[in-house]
Amino acid sequence: MAAAPVWSVDPRTGKQRERVGAEATARDVDAAVRAARAARGALADRAVRAAFLRSAAAGLDAAADGLIETADAETALGPVRLTGELARTVYQLRAFADLVDEGAFLDVIIDHPDGTATPPVPDLRRYKVPLGVVAVYSASNFPFAFSVAGGDTASALAAGCPVVVKAHPDHPALSELVAGVLRRAAAEHGVPEGAVGLVHGFGAGVELIGHPLVAAAGFTGSVRGGRALFDAAAARAVPIPFHGELGSLNPVLVTEGAAAERAEAIGSGLAGSMTLGVGQFCVKPGLVLVPCGVAGDRLLNSLAGAVGDTAAGVLLDHRMRDAFIAGVAERARLPGVEAPVTPGAGGEHTVSAGFLTVPASALAAEGVYDLLLEECFGPVTVVVRYAGDGEATAVLSRLPGSLTATVHLSAGEAAGAGRGAEILAELTPLAGRVLVDAWPTGVAVAPAQHHGGPYPATTSTSTSVGGTALERWLRPVAYQNTPEALLPRELRDGNPLGLPRRFNGRLER
Amino acid sequence: MAAAPVWSVDPRTGKQRERVGAEATARDVDAAVRAARAARGALADRAVRAAFLRSAAAGLDAAADGLIETADAETALGPVRLTGELARTVYQLRAFADLVDEGAFLDVIIDHPDGTATPPVPDLRRYKVPLGVVAVYSASNFPFAFSVAGGDTASALAAGCPVVVKAHPDHPALSELVAGVLRRAAAEHGVPEGAVGLVHGFGAGVELIGHPLVAAAGFTGSVRGGRALFDAAAARAVPIPFHGELGSLNPVLVTEGAAAERAEAIGSGLAGSMTLGVGQFCVKPGLVLVPCGVAGDRLLNSLAGAVGDTAAGVLLDHRMRDAFIAGVAERARLPGVEAPVTPGAGGEHTVSAGFLTVPASALAAEGVYDLLLEECFGPVTVVVRYAGDGEATAVLSRLPGSLTATVHLSAGEAAGAGRGAEILAELTPLAGRVLVDAWPTGVAVAPAQHHGGPYPATTSTSTSVGGTALERWLRPVAYQNTPEALLPRELRDGNPLGLPRRFNGRLER
Repeated sequence: MAAAPVWSVDPRTGKQRERVGAEATARDVDAAVRAARAARGALADRAVRAAFLRSAAAGLDAAADGLIETADAETALGPVRLTGELARTVYQLRAFADLVDEGAFLDVIIDHPDGTATPPVPDLRRYKVPLGVVAVYSASNFPFAFSVAGGDTASALAAGCPVVVKAHPDHPALSELVAGVLRRAAAEHGVPEGAVGLVHGFGAGVELIGHPLVAAAGFTGSVRGGRALFDAAAARAVPIPFHGELGSLNPVLVTEGAAAERAEAIGSGLAGSMTLGVGQFCVKPGLVLVPCGVAGDRLLNSLAGAVGDTAAGVLLDHRMRDAFIAGVAERARLPGVEAPVTPGAGGEHTVSAGFLTVPASALAAEGVYDLLLEECFGPVTVVVRYAGDGEATAVLSRLPGSLTATVHLSAGEAAGAGRGAEILAELTPLAGRVLVDAWPTGVAVAPAQHHGGPYPATTSTSTSVGGTALERWLRPVAYQNTPEALLPRELRDGNPLGLPRRFNGRLER
Repeated sequence: MAAAPVWSVDPRTGKQRERVGAEATARDVDAAVRAARAARGALADRAVRAAFLRSAAAGLDAAADGLIETADAETALGPVRLTGELARTVYQLRAFADLVDEGAFLDVIIDHPDGTATPPVPDLRRYKVPLGVVAVYSASNFPFAFSVAGGDTASALAAGCPVVVKAHPDHPALSELVAGVLRRAAAEHGVPEGAVGLVHGFGAGVELIGHPLVAAAGFTGSVRGGRALFDAAAARAVPIPFHGELGSLNPVLVTEGAAAERAEAIGSGLAGSMTLGVGQFCVKPGLVLVPCGVAGDRLLNSLAGAVGDTAAGVLLDHRMRDAFIAGVAERARLPGVEAPVTPGAGGEHTVSAGFLTVPASALAAEGVYDLLLEECFGPVTVVVRYAGDGEATAVLSRLPGSLTATVHLSAGEAAGAGRGAEILAELTPLAGRVLVDAWPTGVAVAPAQHHGGPYPATTSTSTSVGGTALERWLRPVAYQNTPEALLPRELRDGNPLGLPRRFNGRLER
């Protein structure tokens, strides 16, 4: 039986652009994993890894025009957004190269023998080693930053782990181009090209998570797909870590004071954030608590005006368009839910942005309105009108975990008066990133970034953006009573590599 | 229906000592979890946590005589071993208190806004917060160090997480006593006694892992029990981290050179390590690769002499005694397996130590001999006789993950000649702790300790001993654009708490 063909499709027309290749068979997946595993030795050298990452960044930069053209043809995200996303991806590769040079992630801890301790301490030296081959599941909505050369791949390679990437079917042609750039960068530094494997097809993704030589996985996508893979990772004879970013509601609370002070600015800001990228960001604000009353009404008027002025947009694929249209319709049908600007089908291939409103009381207890607590991918948000802090708190207490939680405060609350600190304390259990007077879209690549949150935002306590994303692909090993001659250089007393470490209890940097 | 009674049993006689209480019902478990959750606020203050841990240490010290007497009556581990174990447990509580004071575990990272980055970086400040209520499953074989006041509890409390401990049925009376000490220590510092919950019974353990308000779990025990709980943790609507230490073979390789130099010392050292605590350590060397030939024969003679001289001992309970006797008999029946000193039943309540031998060729491929690659709890080890490095490497490549892997080298190999470095590289993928010319029993409580390893040694990449055990119970949260007045003190520019941190990319200590 011939392997199923893989087609690149133009979401603006729904038409096939070109045939990219074929879906990977079980044998193909096995070959990719074995080839990746064979690259571990070459990646063991930190200097090689850093140089490889920097060459990959340079390679993407050099190929930018063609990459952006293909990405736009496959995703309709537009050259402006894609140019920014590619720049971010390149920056990220270089940032990880810098972290590889620094070596803090090795988490070196050295204890000399101490006979006075209870029990006595022998010579112990610990650092972190790469886990092995990492399976990376690309996201639909970030063809660069969360795909073949995205954060999972960059952090895994930085950690010394080869990857096998499962391409997203929304951008198979781009995936092949980017993988080619990475492989050429690998070859420049003597790293086997198998260090970056690429497979296509749903079945290949399932094969990959079950492969005995896959040591960990990173995933960005839907709750349904991510949970199925998480379950498969946990059910293996030897379970493996599965770092999945699944779904996120990203609640926003606008206090009465904030609405009174800045109703119009908050309304238009919200419109910008929820419609950015046709609402296809995992950090799109999907549920917004707005106070009842005049100030809240002004906010909604501003929101309605701005959302109403937003041009119809093309979603990443037609399946998503269908899901969006069905999802908003199902929500809008709930009694008491209104649609001041109706989201749904635009033209034949587009969708229109809009928003729904619901009284907070509807969400007070489990029931049909729980649908509103699930992410709806695309340009829609649910505005929950609340009367008094009690109602707002009650809604917050019912929310699932999110990547972000945001509050807009009055100037006085921001300065410490009123309930500002209390609200931050209410939002912290809900999310991995808490924002004040800002919008969650736009995820900076920075050491302090945390892009993760309580389930279903992520399936672990880790982040997929920022320097600490690297920690996901490592495990500690301690060496006891090991002669200097046999110790890895990272663990020698003299610190020949100049690593930050904990030495006999004291932090050294 | 009345709840099932919980009995304290004397393993030296198999007789019930006293009735301790009743198995917890689902309602009891729910009450314990809710009481624990209510203690989160009091544990949020690091100074309170540190003081609480130190009072717990002092309380255990003060109650030592009674605790050791009860522990010995329930476990037959003997006062010497138990005195040492309690001292270690007390030391561990104080060590975690010191880490709480230091605050490095908060992993503070602060980034000031940077408009030149791609994309621009806003004000971002990240640290780690406690996960919530931690379920702790006590171990049979460490009534102090891995039980009610053991490493899981100490590290969870240090992280700011209340605990509900599932007592081990081998020491229910001791569990109640220790929980009492911890609760009194809590009360001294205004921490609700519910911060340390205690439940008895198999069913209570199952309830606990499924409770929606339990946020994570720590476990030390068997592969079967641990895997069932791991599966339950993963199958929850909201999965939770499950840090389980399940089973470990702890392979040892004796090189030909080492055997030639120190056959007798290695044989007697092995005897001491494998029979320590009646072979009931999770780091007992369970499979030892010894070269064929004269030096290896001398090693075995030494081992046989020392093991043969070991007095029969009492295992923790009669179920374990039955399992040990059946387990060694099943292994000894395999064709080609010999028992130079036969392990098995001793007196009516005791067992005798012994060891088995098998040629390396038997383990070259999957088959009936795979039983020898499973941990057998109790005073037995399997000696694998190998001819040449190739056979040794082949056996190592078939081993499951372990807590430890050990090599005994010749003086020349230790100095860097021969295959020393190569052997370390072969052992590293197998374990979380690699030892040279030492024995794995005796797990120091030290910053560089790593007590964990590839599955089934542990179900995660974490450790249950040493300072980094604390990391298991935390998750990061980033605050974006948050006014100084609302920021936790840990995240303020001026660093009023003097915390080690990463500030605008640079490590500060």
